[in-house]
Amino acid sequence: MKNYTSIKDIENIHNWITEAKKVKANPLANKNLGKNKTLGLLFFNSSLRTRLSTQKAALNLGMEPIVMNVSGDAWGIEFEDGTEMNGNTAEHIKEAAAVVSQYCDVIAVRAFPTLTDKEKDESEQVLNSFVKYASVPIVSMESATGHPLQGLTDALTIAENSLKKKPKVVLSWAPHIKALPHAVANSFTQAMQKMDVEFVIANPEGYDLSKEITKDTPIYHNQAQAFKDADFIYAKNWSSYESYGQLLDVNDNWTITKDKIGDAKFMHCLPVRRNVVVEDAVLDSKNSLVIEQANNRTYAAQLVLKKILENL
Amino acid sequence: MKNYTSIKDIENIHNWITEAKKVKANPLANKNLGKNKTLGLLFFNSSLRTRLSTQKAALNLGMEPIVMNVSGDAWGIEFEDGTEMNGNTAEHIKEAAAVVSQYCDVIAVRAFPTLTDKEKDESEQVLNSFVKYASVPIVSMESATGHPLQGLTDALTIAENSLKKKPKVVLSWAPHIKALPHAVANSFTQAMQKMDVEFVIANPEGYDLSKEITKDTPIYHNQAQAFKDADFIYAKNWSSYESYGQLLDVNDNWTITKDKIGDAKFMHCLPVRRNVVVEDAVLDSKNSLVIEQANNRTYAAQLVLKKILENL
Amino acid sequence: MKNYTSIKDIENIHNWITEAKKVKANPLANKNLGKNKTLGLLFFNSSLRTRLSTQKAALNLGMEPIVMNVSGDAWGIEFEDGTEMNGNTAEHIKEAAAVVSQYCDVIAVRAFPTLTDKEKDESEQVLNSFVKYASVPIVSMESATGHPLQGLTDALTIAENSLKKKPKVVLSWAPHIKALPHAVANSFTQAMQKMDVEFVIANPEGYDLSKEITKDTPIYHNQAQAFKDADFIYAKNWSSYESYGQLLDVNDNWTITKDKIGDAKFMHCLPVRRNVVVEDAVLDSKNSLVIEQANNRTYAAQLVLKKILENL
Repeated sequence: MKNYTSIKDIENIHNWITEAKKVKANPLANKNLGKNKTLGLLFFNSSLRTRLSTQKAALNLGMEPIVMNVSGDAWGIEFEDGTEMNGNTAEHIKEAAAVVSQYCDVIAVRAFPTLTDKEKDESEQVLNSFVKYASVPIVSMESATGHPLQGLTDALTIAENSLKKKPKVVLSWAPHIKALPHAVANSFTQAMQKMDVEFVIANPEGYDLSKEITKDTPIYHNQAQAFKDADFIYAKNWSSYESYGQLLDVNDNWTITKDKIGDAKFMHCLPVRRNVVVEDAVLDSKNSLVIEQANNRTYAAQLVLKKILENL
Repeated sequence: MKNYTSIKDIENIHNWITEAKKVKANPLANKNLGKNKTLGLLFFNSSLRTRLSTQKAALNLGMEPIVMNVSGDAWGIEFEDGTEMNGNTAEHIKEAAAVVSQYCDVIAVRAFPTLTDKEKDESEQVLNSFVKYASVPIVSMESATGHPLQGLTDALTIAENSLKKKPKVVLSWAPHIKALPHAVANSFTQAMQKMDVEFVIANPEGYDLSKEITKDTPIYHNQAQAFKDADFIYAKNWSSYESYGQLLDVNDNWTITKDKIGDAKFMHCLPVRRNVVVEDAVLDSKNSLVIEQANNRTYAAQLVLKKILENL
Repeated sequence: MKNYTSIKDIENIHNWITEAKKVKANPLANKNLGKNKTLGLLFFNSSLRTRLSTQKAALNLGMEPIVMNVSGDAWGIEFEDGTEMNGNTAEHIKEAAAVVSQYCDVIAVRAFPTLTDKEKDESEQVLNSFVKYASVPIVSMESATGHPLQGLTDALTIAENSLKKKPKVVLSWAPHIKALPHAVANSFTQAMQKMDVEFVIANPEGYDLSKEITKDTPIYHNQAQAFKDADFIYAKNWSSYESYGQLLDVNDNWTITKDKIGDAKFMHCLPVRRNVVVEDAVLDSKNSLVIEQANNRTYAAQLVLKKILENL
């Protein structure tokens, strides 16, 4: 594997889960693999889990992480071709990506969408520019339309916590006060489509994800119907895809409650707004897997970095 | 020892000083103790000495430090229980602390007081929330009401520089243009109360520290009287505790001068505003211990981390 | 060598280039030299290449880099002597430099000029204050009037890419929309003056660099004339030195084009504004050395740190 920028880069998710479990069981087994190798972590946006878990994963492999907040520590980067750069951007991605490749053996990038320009977001300009102009492997730490480290994490967590051969997994839209990206929902959907699970999505009308992503996954506009006999409820807010980046009026209450989910396991990528997305009673119950998901971020990142290092 | 959040966590300060001197004499003796262990340093507020000395201490023990500026790098954290999080905070401390515990073997936290809400500050909401919700040891890098790494540093510095069996130590309030916390003064007072010294405090009327802290330590409102026969003068500004967080009119000049302190050793935790808190002639004299205090921050932090690691 | 703050610190540039090539050929040969030594990187200004390449150089030598954004992470530093610090600065450089020296074995500093106060900039107040008050070696990561790590990098790059015994090298001013420092142009000029090259400078009238720097280097106000038979064209914008820090009206078009430079190698320190300083066709051609310059930043920094460590 050269780059890891999408769930599509996982050729066989069952093998990857088996390998991730091995990494988790013995995280320091490959401490020499990354010796004298640096991982550059470039943040165009803020981060807590991703920042810490990816550094931890690198350290477990003996790599040296170097963190940069691109906006704060450096300067504006130009992504358009052929422009006369007499505005706010001081360096072109062609140089920036090539230069960082001189110092880092692997580059991990986080860059959120605009949520105003669908075409630009779907072109994955920032991530794909790094893939194009860097001379070293690129890992997505969440891009405009995907969060594949989270998707892999979630697949691992479901595999670890499933009591059935083919559990029912529901991705449910939940309320939020701000317009949020589709990245986590997209990558979770793509990961579930590769798993041996019964997977459905629940969201209000007007909130269907891109057809390119959902394909033939059943979509319910009635939350209760979707939740019937569910083993795992994965909650996440996203803004409208059709009315791109908008918050629409929603009649029903989509907040996840204990009453609604019963004995199903609860999942969320975090950060989560308590009593908006989900009520305290769910997060504070034994059925919540959110902290274990956070823990598994380390092993998902570590598996990806291990595969990349083995291929250098 | 699990956590280090207060001078009260020091069971016997004389033993600790003996151990700290050993750490200082041979700082790399325990380079393997922290191998493959990470220290998360979470800053809610700015820091120079604490940031560098705590990292240095971790490195001396073979730990991997991971630094995060919570406000800049991540997002607003909610500390209230049961709230509907539809405002500025995006993650609850319950998740944040539990999540960071997945990646860090020890968490060090800096969080200053509001200086407007005495009750909230005294509840040590941020620090205590980490203690409550993290699953790993917590070290205070200065909280609302205490700075125990500084207090331990200062005790070590006095022990190293004392020519007498029972020296006289004075904590003196000094002027400043901004309202400052009580944390350093509180922890210094608590540390001195455990030491074999004659300890008194000098401050203008209206500036007495909390009775819970000063207990039966003599308080002088006349600086000259307090300074009589002093061996160590520790200067520090703090805002009023009674008129909580306020700057009061002070008639006398409390700036520390060479004339006032004579041959006494001068101490300050730094940063210090020259010619406001203390005149140049004092800081630039041989009697100033401020740089040695800064140096000892490393060994205080290293002793604390060593004790925690030995107990993991 | 104690400090590295200027090209003047290079006693024999030919020997240094020979040594730098050895470092580049085998960058991990001295991995034990910096063991248990910390490099403090203090940024008063933003940085991408310098931040990453200096960390990489430190890691190659086994050092532990500790990065600080002075403005964001800490507080305002006072550089004037004897002032009553009742304004925006909270710590004096006397304390700051001495304190950082307690935690770091070498300190690297980046501090740009004001471009409004020539005398202050030429006094190199920030850099020289660190030299004066720190107790450990100081490395300039670009100061008000020089960028000696870049100058050394550029000398190495020219040595590696020269096909002639005595190539012709031109430093050419190029357009920019903002007032930029003279640091890179100054250090490049000083480095070339030490090399066995034919060195000339091309810039519009009113843009001559300081006579203290250019000495008897020929200065052309006609770009085409200067470029005749050039082997290397080094482009850089700088603001006026005479009309200090100003942008002057320039009649001719000084943007570097493929037509203008022909087969000469193109160099720039980056970041570069495309189609303002230089057209795409030059940067995207095989004659551009800019990425190799970026790569050589690591080995220039590593040679400097190696020399300092060997002398500790």
